[in-house]
Formats: sequence, C-alpha cells, structure tokens
Amino acid sequence: MNAFILSIQEIIDNLKVNSETVDMQVIEKIADEIIARKRVFVYGAGRSGLVAKAFAQRLMHIGIESYVIGETINPSVKPGNIVLLVSGSGETTSTVAIGDKAKKVGALVISVTTRPDSSLARLSDIVLQVSGKTKLMEKKSYAPFTSLFDTACLAILDSIAALIMEKLGIDESVIAERHANVE
Amino acid sequence: MNAFILSIQEIIDNLKVNSETVDMQVIEKIADEIIARKRVFVYGAGRSGLVAKAFAQRLMHIGIESYVIGETINPSVKPGNIVLLVSGSGETTSTVAIGDKAKKVGALVISVTTRPDSSLARLSDIVLQVSGKTKLMEKKSYAPFTSLFDTACLAILDSIAALIMEKLGIDESVIAERHANVE
Amino acid sequence: MNAFILSIQEIIDNLKVNSETVDMQVIEKIADEIIARKRVFVYGAGRSGLVAKAFAQRLMHIGIESYVIGETINPSVKPGNIVLLVSGSGETTSTVAIGDKAKKVGALVISVTTRPDSSLARLSDIVLQVSGKTKLMEKKSYAPFTSLFDTACLAILDSIAALIMEKLGIDESVIAERHANVE
Amino acid sequence: MNAFILSIQEIIDNLKVNSETVDMQVIEKIADEIIARKRVFVYGAGRSGLVAKAFAQRLMHIGIESYVIGETINPSVKPGNIVLLVSGSGETTSTVAIGDKAKKVGALVISVTTRPDSSLARLSDIVLQVSGKTKLMEKKSYAPFTSLFDTACLAILDSIAALIMEKLGIDESVIAERHANVE
Repeated sequence: MNAFILSIQEIIDNLKVNSETVDMQVIEKIADEIIARKRVFVYGAGRSGLVAKAFAQRLMHIGIESYVIGETINPSVKPGNIVLLVSGSGETTSTVAIGDKAKKVGALVISVTTRPDSSLARLSDIVLQVSGKTKLMEKKSYAPFTSLFDTACLAILDSIAALIMEKLGIDESVIAERHANVE
Repeated sequence: MNAFILSIQEIIDNLKVNSETVDMQVIEKIADEIIARKRVFVYGAGRSGLVAKAFAQRLMHIGIESYVIGETINPSVKPGNIVLLVSGSGETTSTVAIGDKAKKVGALVISVTTRPDSSLARLSDIVLQVSGKTKLMEKKSYAPFTSLFDTACLAILDSIAALIMEKLGIDESVIAERHANVE
Repeated sequence: MNAFILSIQEIIDNLKVNSETVDMQVIEKIADEIIARKRVFVYGAGRSGLVAKAFAQRLMHIGIESYVIGETINPSVKPGNIVLLVSGSGETTSTVAIGDKAKKVGALVISVTTRPDSSLARLSDIVLQVSGKTKLMEKKSYAPFTSLFDTACLAILDSIAALIMEKLGIDESVIAERHANVE
Repeated sequence: MNAFILSIQEIIDNLKVNSETVDMQVIEKIADEIIARKRVFVYGAGRSGLVAKAFAQRLMHIGIESYVIGETINPSVKPGNIVLLVSGSGETTSTVAIGDKAKKVGALVISVTTRPDSSLARLSDIVLQVSGKTKLMEKKSYAPFTSLFDTACLAILDSIAALIMEKLGIDESVIAERHANVE
C-alpha cells in the first residue's frame, strides 16, 4: 500500500479513537456555553487557525454570532463572551498571548489541544483534549505533521455544531438561508 | 531628491487632486446609502482588497454592519444590501464576477475605480471615480504601481467614514468601544 | 445517541467510502504533476477555501512552492503552473471565474469537487471527485452542511501530501524545518 | 466644510508633516537592510496589519521574498531575516508577542509606530516613528481613529519601496511581470 492509503487509514483510525475517547461532558458543556453566551471569538495559528475558522463559519451559519480574531470584522470581546482557541501543542506564541488577554477582559476561554498540561490549557476555563500528533510529539506516522490533529479537530468541532443544531431544534434550511450567496 | 521624497510628494499631490476633483454628490450619496441600508459587503483583489477591508473595519467601528466577501464570517447578501467593490482598472476577474453576482441577488453595487467606462463601473449602481495610476495606465510616476490609487482610496474611504460619523452624530468614543481589544 | 456521535460517525463513514472509491489514478496523477511542475496556486470560497489553504500550507512545508489566490503574497501564474480549485458544487462564482482565467494564462487546472459534470469540472484538466454532501444536494445527514465534503477533502489532500513526501523520499524533519516558528 | 473635506485635508496635512519630519537615516537604513537581507516577514493587527500586508505585497512585486505572519504561506523565520511590525500604539498584544519571538529566533526586528518608548519599539532593532493619532492618544481630529497613522504608514512604506526600486535600478515593468494575473 502506498503512503496515500496508509495516511487516509491513519486519519480514519485517529478519528475513531477520538470518537471513543473524547470527553462527552466537555462536548456537552461547550455546546451549552455557546448556546447560552451566543457570542464566540475563535483563533488559531497556521492550520489550527484554518480549523478554527471553519468552526466560526459554521457557527455563523447556524445563527451564533461569531468572529475570527485577526480578520477584518473583529469587534471588542465583552466579559462573558467565549474565546475558543485551537493549538495542538498548546504553546503557540500568539495563541497563548491571545488567551492571556482574553482572560483579562473577562472572556470564557475554551482551548482545543492535545496537551492538557500546556500553557494554553492551564489558562483556559474549559479544555477539550483531542488526540493526534502535534509539533512537539515524536510518534511515527504516515499522515504528515499535524494532519491527525487537524482532521480530528475539524470533525469534532463540526459535530459540536451538529449537537448545537439538535439542541436548538434547527436544521440545514437555516444554514442554506445564511450561507454566503455572493462568493 | 531621492525616490522616497519624490514618491511621498507624488502621493500627497495625488491626494490633493482627488480632494479637489472627487464628486461630492457621489460622496454624499454613498454616505447616505450606507446609513440608510445599514449592511455593507466589501471586496477587492490584492491591494484594492486591503483598502476595502480597512473601510469595512472602520464601518464596523462606527456601528455599521459590514462584511468582507471571502473572509470567514461572510453571511448571505440580501436584496437592498450594499456591495462595495474596489478595483483600479475596473477589470479584475473576481471583482467583476462578484459584482455580477451581487446585482443578481438585488444588492446596490458601488464601485471605486479610476475608470468610469470599465466593466465594473458599467454594472454598478454608483461609481466613485478616484484619480491614480492603475495597472492599465502608462503614466510615468515615482510612486510604485497602484500606490497613488491605493493611498487615495484609503484616504477617501476613511473620510467617507468621517462624514457618516458626522451625519450620525457620533464621535470616536464609539470607535474606542467597538475596536478589537483582543488582537 | 446524540447528534455529536451521529455526526462524527457519519464523517468517519464518508471518509471510508472515499478511501475505497477515490480514483487512485487521479491521486497519482495529481501527486506527479505537483512534483513535476513545482509551483501550485490554490483557491476555494468559504470552507472549501480553508481546505485549499491547509493543502497549500502543507505543500509549502514539504518544499513545494505554493500560493493562495487572494492572499497577500500571490505572484503571477505562469504557463504550466498548477491552479488547484476546491468547490463542492463546482458552481461557486469566484472559483469558476478563477478557473476560467487560469486556463487563459496556460495553467494546468485541477478541481476537487463532488460533481464531475459541474462548470468547474468541465473547464478543468484533472478532476478529483470526492464524495460528500454539497450545497446542491438534498441527502439527509447528521453532519452539518458540507461537513462531509470538507473533512473528506482535508483528509484526501493531506494524504496526497503524504504520497508526495514518499515519492520525494522526505520525512517530517523537512516539515519541522520549514514550519512557521514565529506565529 | 463637511467632515469629508476636513478629514481628507487632515490626512494630507499629516502626510506633509511626516514627509518633513520622518528620519531619513532610518528610511535609508530600512531600505538597505531589506536589500541586503532579502527576506522579510511582516505583521500587524487590525488596520495596521492591512498596511503591513500592502507593503509585503509591494516587496513581492519588486522581487523581495516576503511573507505575512498569520497567512497560509508562512515559512520559518531564519536568523538574520527581517521581521517588520506595525502598531500605532506599540502595545498591541499579538504584535509585541511576535516581536519577542522574532528576537529569540535571531531576526532583525523593525517596528513602525508612533511611540518610540513603547514595548514594541523597545524590543526592536530599528524604530521608524510615524506621526499620527493612535488608540492611546487624545488629539481632537476629524479623521477617524487611527486613519492619520494608517494613511501615513501606507504612504511611507510605499515610498520606501520606491527607494528600494531606485537602489536596485528596477522600474515598474518588474512589477507588471510579477503582479498577480489570476485574482
């Protein structure tokens, strides 16, 4: 088998591991806090940032006010708003700096990381641990650097969005209405 | 004098020309439409896109709902919303395609361009002509390619924001309240 | 079972379907063309754009010159360069417009889409069909709108990167060397 | 006179002040370092980031390898590379954090700010002081918040690009060759 097949199989296996080991109480808590607080800012550097943006866009689609820290339309964070940060290592410079600042303005900080003992996790109010290979880990793998973490995060965050939709009693017609039509 | 001094002088001179020749009726009309319609989408490619984003961010600061087409948090354009497009040449592929699509969904299309006879200008409801050198022009200049257009656009759009603030009776304390505090 | 579990299971199932049905000749062809042509531009709108960016960043990590159309550092496309476009529906306005323009300048256009009969696929030199739910499909699903397509694309494109790494005989130490260290 | 005219006049006046007071030795030094070191990373938050991106794009146009920290194609900073940071106040969280990290990896840090006594300026190797109103200043002005700083920075950085072009003996035909043709 070539590296393509081995890589995609490893991504699937890692998703299965995550679906069995992810802390469902944390998943429920994140969904409930997003529904209750209604206003979510996300940030991540590099590919973690792309995953964070995909989640922010989905939240917008289902009617949750969401923003990407660092993009153009990024208003002030108010006390009680959610700041959700994605970093595999939990040590990314800008992500940790933003987490610190978010705590100071009174936000609820949620982090998505492989390392519950990282700087980012320690400053967070809620930590969602995702299994995957990160920059600081050495595990031999056919999926390139951080791919396991990134795909697992995307699948988990999208599935949190599905849970929020279920809790709010909305379906995809809501998304179709809000989805960008000029792009 | 070196090229730095010549370039900055040329930028200043071009700003002066624009401040004297820009169509004040169009400026007033754009400010009034933004205040009346309340929801503005912007787009531009390359440096024109950066100028468009700077305007969108300022609009957000002063309380106008604004979005950047192509960024993460970009909902659907509704009939009557404003789509403001920046293109020096008025012929940029994606900008013209987005203008066409915006017309189809019933948006009011405002274009900012040097060329009132361009494809973009022809499809627009309101055309703001800005003087400057563009990709399609040959004028000898010390300011690099498109710099005259970009700086004039930024100054003019920021000054439209100042006019909107005056019309709404708001001052900079509103901006300070809305300006990103976690970035 | 709640919507979270159902959604993540559906994402895994869709990945399995893709791993079994994806056209391996197309996968090999894309890897070979990227290695041969060395310079790749990517584009997609919305979440498809985020997936395209994740691939471009991975290509940069493994030493392939890559660019994102619409980002700041985006030089001119030369004849023979690759333009890789992601669109579930294959009908996104800006993506089709960019595909048309890319053909005109002599690029090799690769599209990643669910619909081999779409406008985008028809103008492309190579079409990679990915299974998933798209904006234009009606299939009942627990994973939100386009999530199946997006996660499958991310996994498939990352696995193409793994295949390129195998073909080039490089490992993750190359990525560690190139990965952003100031972010 | 309405706020539009007053604002654009104030922007022009501020540009004149800057053209007369900017430290030409610092301007020359920045141009020379960029030519010598050949590889430049830029960053700024909010509108300062847009100005930084405009400069990075112009550098790419004139053949200098440039990157935007936070965008997709952002490789590792090597010792001796330039990291150029824009922040009016010089106290923006992420900008200062990135400046600190850049120093640690051995980059030459250039900051563009109104405040030579700021945290950002103090950690920088070269400080370019630009006059304008910033978030931390109280000066009464008709141009909205930070507009004076942003427009002056754009004009000054574009004029540094003009100086680099003069020093390298290249003209706009180089830009036309490199400017994005698919966008």
